[in-house]
Amino acid sequence: MSDLTGMYIEDAEVGLTAQIGRTVTDADLVMYAGISGDTNPVHLNDDYAKSTPFEGRIAHGMLTAGLISAVIGTKMPGPGSIYLSQTLKFKAPVRVGDTVTAKVTVEEVFTERKRVRLSTICSIGETIVLEGEATVMLPSRG
Amino acid sequence: MSDLTGMYIEDAEVGLTAQIGRTVTDADLVMYAGISGDTNPVHLNDDYAKSTPFEGRIAHGMLTAGLISAVIGTKMPGPGSIYLSQTLKFKAPVRVGDTVTAKVTVEEVFTERKRVRLSTICSIGETIVLEGEATVMLPSRG
Amino acid sequence: MSDLTGMYIEDAEVGLTAQIGRTVTDADLVMYAGISGDTNPVHLNDDYAKSTPFEGRIAHGMLTAGLISAVIGTKMPGPGSIYLSQTLKFKAPVRVGDTVTAKVTVEEVFTERKRVRLSTICSIGETIVLEGEATVMLPSRG
Amino acid sequence: MSDLTGMYIEDAEVGLTAQIGRTVTDADLVMYAGISGDTNPVHLNDDYAKSTPFEGRIAHGMLTAGLISAVIGTKMPGPGSIYLSQTLKFKAPVRVGDTVTAKVTVEEVFTERKRVRLSTICSIGETIVLEGEATVMLPSRG
Repeated sequence: MSDLTGMYIEDAEVGLTAQIGRTVTDADLVMYAGISGDTNPVHLNDDYAKSTPFEGRIAHGMLTAGLISAVIGTKMPGPGSIYLSQTLKFKAPVRVGDTVTAKVTVEEVFTERKRVRLSTICSIGETIVLEGEATVMLPSRG
Repeated sequence: MSDLTGMYIEDAEVGLTAQIGRTVTDADLVMYAGISGDTNPVHLNDDYAKSTPFEGRIAHGMLTAGLISAVIGTKMPGPGSIYLSQTLKFKAPVRVGDTVTAKVTVEEVFTERKRVRLSTICSIGETIVLEGEATVMLPSRG
Repeated sequence: MSDLTGMYIEDAEVGLTAQIGRTVTDADLVMYAGISGDTNPVHLNDDYAKSTPFEGRIAHGMLTAGLISAVIGTKMPGPGSIYLSQTLKFKAPVRVGDTVTAKVTVEEVFTERKRVRLSTICSIGETIVLEGEATVMLPSRG
Repeated sequence: MSDLTGMYIEDAEVGLTAQIGRTVTDADLVMYAGISGDTNPVHLNDDYAKSTPFEGRIAHGMLTAGLISAVIGTKMPGPGSIYLSQTLKFKAPVRVGDTVTAKVTVEEVFTERKRVRLSTICSIGETIVLEGEATVMLPSRG
């Protein structure tokens, strides 16, 4: 099952980076409403959403955050790592049809504690929509 | 559309609380994998997951975090509020069949800036599985 | 496109019957919560549902009703018919794992008005869980 | 778990009303086809649907009815109530992109039998697309 193993703490280096991009669809919003229970009409009701400062439906912020989870869980550090914490600042709305890119960068390596601090940024083109940091524990070769 | 409006900043009070409970199912994990792209085998592959420290499949941490989004988006403050930030500490695994309760409590009210600071805790029975804080902007009556 | 055409009014006869069976899964409940917005905890929260007279999670009644729609829309009368009305009496709960059979029977034919009255019954084994009638308009050969 | 309880029979009053609005998307039709099995091409096949009197794809009538379930299950009467019956008259088609509002109004209160009769109307702007009545049993404080 070695093909399922992500990065080891011994291989973590400041500046390493990984990313995933994804186009947000109506299906994502509907399914996310189902699994989260977040049926806030700003996500599901065009008429209501047009009356808000967003002037239309927007994706759940936490749905966008899922892209960070995807990078961490499948790319870097990948399988075998343990997600300890995440901070999220929602900076701008994401709408159906937007392609969001989540980029994760190693900012600090704590070899003894087997942890890395990651910056986690989601953007649409040049616009940052979500910004934060994650702490992840990595497996050790030793 | 006044029935779609949640709490106004003028009504926010320290100590107010709201919660939602939810039983995690296989469907949640599969659908979340689909919409987030987080296909880490620890969530989807029993054989692999048994070989990890978790000794079985666990839910995505960010899937549990969606319950906080549901409380904030539908209960308190509810529709009309704008989610500004969230911190998340993943404290213990969530498995299929667990019923997770997300509880949100107003910790601080910043009337002029129309913001509240909320504690956000997810638990299974007495065990806290996710802990953090949110900042949310509320509409004003004025 | 003749293969897409269902029953014509000229072929409708009292006593004709069609049915579809389906096993209800957690996925159905989660997805139905998403598309309907019905996140009532009796469908999604085991702990809460155990405290109700149902003593556990049950499917949305309207989810079961969808099986009638499936028979009418795909079997009898099938494509080309127009669904005019439906009555629904919810008689007993449906739970995850139950296999529900929806049976539709022609009860009356109104040739001039191109309509049929159908009895629509959903059952689990011998237990009727949903009972009602539908009126459907059929295409005419003439 | 008192926060999960909706309206008690003692609080039911003729004229009380609640509503939910929702924009219908392709995802709703696809997911509803999946969970109901209603794969009638009038919902899923543009070419076929254009050849029908509807001149294009329409939502499943029973999908629209799910919005009534959402109001009853989450708003009024809300959790704790038991859905006994529903009548549905499908009056006009609903298409992808339409925002449907489901409005539920208490028409009659049967205190001893702990039941309410509700009118249930779905509309797009001023156009009624679905009309009917529901009977729901409510919990009692006594």
